[in-house]
Amino acid sequence: MQNLFARPVEQNAGEHLEALLVRRGFTLERILSSGHASPPGFWYDQDRDEWVALLAGDAELLFEEGAERVLLRAGDHLLIPAHKRHRVERTSSDAVWLTLHFAP
Amino acid sequence: MQNLFARPVEQNAGEHLEALLVRRGFTLERILSSGHASPPGFWYDQDRDEWVALLAGDAELLFEEGAERVLLRAGDHLLIPAHKRHRVERTSSDAVWLTLHFAP
Repeated sequence: MQNLFARPVEQNAGEHLEALLVRRGFTLERILSSGHASPPGFWYDQDRDEWVALLAGDAELLFEEGAERVLLRAGDHLLIPAHKRHRVERTSSDAVWLTLHFAP
Repeated sequence: MQNLFARPVEQNAGEHLEALLVRRGFTLERILSSGHASPPGFWYDQDRDEWVALLAGDAELLFEEGAERVLLRAGDHLLIPAHKRHRVERTSSDAVWLTLHFAP
């Protein structure tokens, strides 16, 4: 049985990404972050809508529009429309994300 | 901000189902179970594949084929192919499910 909260024995700093389901129309991924932040000046600008849930830990997203900061705690989830530019400002060392990318 | 672990103030016994995303090709749902079990003799027999994750609590599924029992703890997830008959044998009072149904 696979577990969403399981962490690999050795995990480097940064992000560990795992595709759980890749189907026509959507991709479901699990991401383990360990104190990760997007590189300075980097913005995600995605062609697909993204539903994102933080399953464990806490994190902060920054949206370019209005310089909006969004703090997430374990369980928080939101929809990020395609081309809504955003970045990960910080994550705790125990952050687990679940993301679903799909055509808008 | 919506939270996957949040529970309504008053929750009846049984199941509380909430559609998070309904798109062409898939449906993402959150289900709060509180000591719920499928009715006696009832089997789910679904037209679509289902990815199911237990985010909190614990639960037991029963698959008709081989009378296979599957115990789930928080974080466990699995794929249930379409028409694989199964039922929920029991859930703890604090169970939170996340399910993704999609065309096979």
